[in-house]
Amino acid sequence: MKAFQDIVYSDRKSHQNIHECIIANYQIIESWFRNQWLKYPAPFYSSIDIRNSGFKISPIDTNLFPAGFNNLNNDFESLYITAVKHSLDSFKTSIDKILIIPEDHTRNLHYLKSLEYLSSLIEKAGYEVKVSKPTIVDNTNFKIVNSILEYDGFVPDAILLNNDLSSGIPSFLDNVKQLILPSKNIGWTKRSKSEHFNYYSDVCSNFSNLLDIDSWLIDPEFRNCGEINFKTKQGEECLVYHAEKLFDIITDKYEKYDINEKPFIIIKADSGTYGMGVISIDNIDQIKNLNRKQRNKMLSTKGNNSLDKVILQEGVYSFEQTRESSNVAEPVIYSFSNFLIGGFYRTHENKANNENLNSPGMVFHPIPLNDICIAPNLKLPIDSPINKYYVYGVVARLAILAAAKELFNID
Amino acid sequence: MKAFQDIVYSDRKSHQNIHECIIANYQIIESWFRNQWLKYPAPFYSSIDIRNSGFKISPIDTNLFPAGFNNLNNDFESLYITAVKHSLDSFKTSIDKILIIPEDHTRNLHYLKSLEYLSSLIEKAGYEVKVSKPTIVDNTNFKIVNSILEYDGFVPDAILLNNDLSSGIPSFLDNVKQLILPSKNIGWTKRSKSEHFNYYSDVCSNFSNLLDIDSWLIDPEFRNCGEINFKTKQGEECLVYHAEKLFDIITDKYEKYDINEKPFIIIKADSGTYGMGVISIDNIDQIKNLNRKQRNKMLSTKGNNSLDKVILQEGVYSFEQTRESSNVAEPVIYSFSNFLIGGFYRTHENKANNENLNSPGMVFHPIPLNDICIAPNLKLPIDSPINKYYVYGVVARLAILAAAKELFNID
Repeated sequence: MKAFQDIVYSDRKSHQNIHECIIANYQIIESWFRNQWLKYPAPFYSSIDIRNSGFKISPIDTNLFPAGFNNLNNDFESLYITAVKHSLDSFKTSIDKILIIPEDHTRNLHYLKSLEYLSSLIEKAGYEVKVSKPTIVDNTNFKIVNSILEYDGFVPDAILLNNDLSSGIPSFLDNVKQLILPSKNIGWTKRSKSEHFNYYSDVCSNFSNLLDIDSWLIDPEFRNCGEINFKTKQGEECLVYHAEKLFDIITDKYEKYDINEKPFIIIKADSGTYGMGVISIDNIDQIKNLNRKQRNKMLSTKGNNSLDKVILQEGVYSFEQTRESSNVAEPVIYSFSNFLIGGFYRTHENKANNENLNSPGMVFHPIPLNDICIAPNLKLPIDSPINKYYVYGVVARLAILAAAKELFNID
Repeated sequence: MKAFQDIVYSDRKSHQNIHECIIANYQIIESWFRNQWLKYPAPFYSSIDIRNSGFKISPIDTNLFPAGFNNLNNDFESLYITAVKHSLDSFKTSIDKILIIPEDHTRNLHYLKSLEYLSSLIEKAGYEVKVSKPTIVDNTNFKIVNSILEYDGFVPDAILLNNDLSSGIPSFLDNVKQLILPSKNIGWTKRSKSEHFNYYSDVCSNFSNLLDIDSWLIDPEFRNCGEINFKTKQGEECLVYHAEKLFDIITDKYEKYDINEKPFIIIKADSGTYGMGVISIDNIDQIKNLNRKQRNKMLSTKGNNSLDKVILQEGVYSFEQTRESSNVAEPVIYSFSNFLIGGFYRTHENKANNENLNSPGMVFHPIPLNDICIAPNLKLPIDSPINKYYVYGVVARLAILAAAKELFNID
């Protein structure tokens, strides 16, 4: 095994060292993952947003009710279908009919395309699929007979949630006997980002012991504050306090690793949101001086509930950019259970490398066919696409494993 | 469900009806397969030779120690790696190191390429792989310590046989504690084609009940004879007797379905062989009048053992041919466990549509990327490649299921 500390840091180029360490130890890593999945089965599906600054690579969002399937490279469809089969096979029970409960925002054409592609994949895997009318608020079409959920006469064997339950767990899912995927208790009603990143830190600490690396290289620091009201500034001192702590930690790490960049912090809702309510700051005063627009932004989360809990997370620079136009890019990796199926780059022409790219104006570039993130190629350079994507795949699976542990403890 | 008998036969074009029935009922079929795999886990890997005459489509050989991996389309590598992972995951036990025991004929470059590709796939799936020197006869490098097999200091967690055990089960596999894949009892030492096709007939009869079709449309008739010596003509009357019976059955079926072709029968070794010892006859006299060359051919099976048992199998015409040169073609479909990974067409410029194509001079054409045999496309015509390949995939899985039942009863 190649030890990570043997590798010297100097400039951004040599910051590829965490990548080198992962590639060199890929068999040990795969073996470790295999044993983890035996204990903690992965959630049905996921998409993981990743930021790669070269010196650090981290997941920044773990979505357990993914959309965006329409942005995948459909040359790879047989892989997706195979992964769907694997994911459903793993329950070792007879499932034929699947009801998908989608998000409520029907007018988003991108979302509807994603939903259509997702259901076609499950259909092509040989299941009968029905998508409920995309509103769980108006639930007159749902009926419970002897603890079995029916939708419009359709009696599913499993219920697949493609709704993050930001608006609460619908009552018709209470005491339902059917399998609910991934789980009704893993929606934003019950889940928080800080809890997820607690699990993620745990996973990273085990993984880092395995490879003998500093877990900071894959784990973004974070803190959380409850009872924040951006309108009345209630709780501001909590934000300032934790932001100061975070800036101290990040500054120390940047010095240790000779990283000549300005630390920054992302403040976002601790539960849910679709890229709304996300701000990026690089000094404490910015918290105190949030203008009205920024404050309003923090109030306009999905469902228009006012924010009460936030997570402050170490910002991870993205030093990846599109070749032609130099737009900032971040990878998004998809999975069905523990099987990765590739993903795409999210890019944005109006955003800097320390800003949230998940916002209007983003563009998607599917990861090309042969370079999918399933296996490295030891004969190619560390920074070749295939090897970079493998590293993404490892980081994505660390996040999936964290979610698997959440599920394990919630259900 | 669309009933098969509603479809009328007339000419070769409309003989696509078995295809139509399979495509129309694909969800029922997928559901049925899922339930079968729960009871009968598929063998680790396989390749299935298929013949498609339009009016009939059947497997003619089910190889449980497949070669030819080098002929697969490697654009699809991530699918193969994913299928390998699935196949090994399904044992729900910790496997890190795999020893592959290959065939003995080292000088076959095609075989060595296949072996290299197979082991690279398993390596890329994250396992440590060692290939034993391709001779199980000279087994001085194998050592047993406390019922654990070691090879040259390598202690595998699982032993993968890529040797069909035509020359017997090597003694060093006796009482070994490690997992042996697919099983040491499923080699040609113990297995026979007639036993496999007995299981296959069983599977077909269940499948045909499901779809309400005549199982003959997917099931080749067969008979077997023991104690045949082609040199001394001992047992010839058994061959003649069964060949007459077979010709009668096939002739009746051809009449029933208005098929204007000459029935033929394939005679081959009941165990093993690499395409050697296979003859095609279309009348009884040909058995009585086998010339010296043909008799010698029947004696020259793999390992040069003289044949003692043979299977007489209904010949299935191949009405598929290459577009440019009109060479006869037959599909070969590969799997890891119950996951199909595509395959290729075997073609031969010097063979007729009622002859064995698995012989020197054969050429391989990988099945193209998007048309892999995993899911049909109901919007496309029945005879479109994607739908034809789906039908191959169904027939291949029927053969795999037959092998799974063999395994279930042998192990």
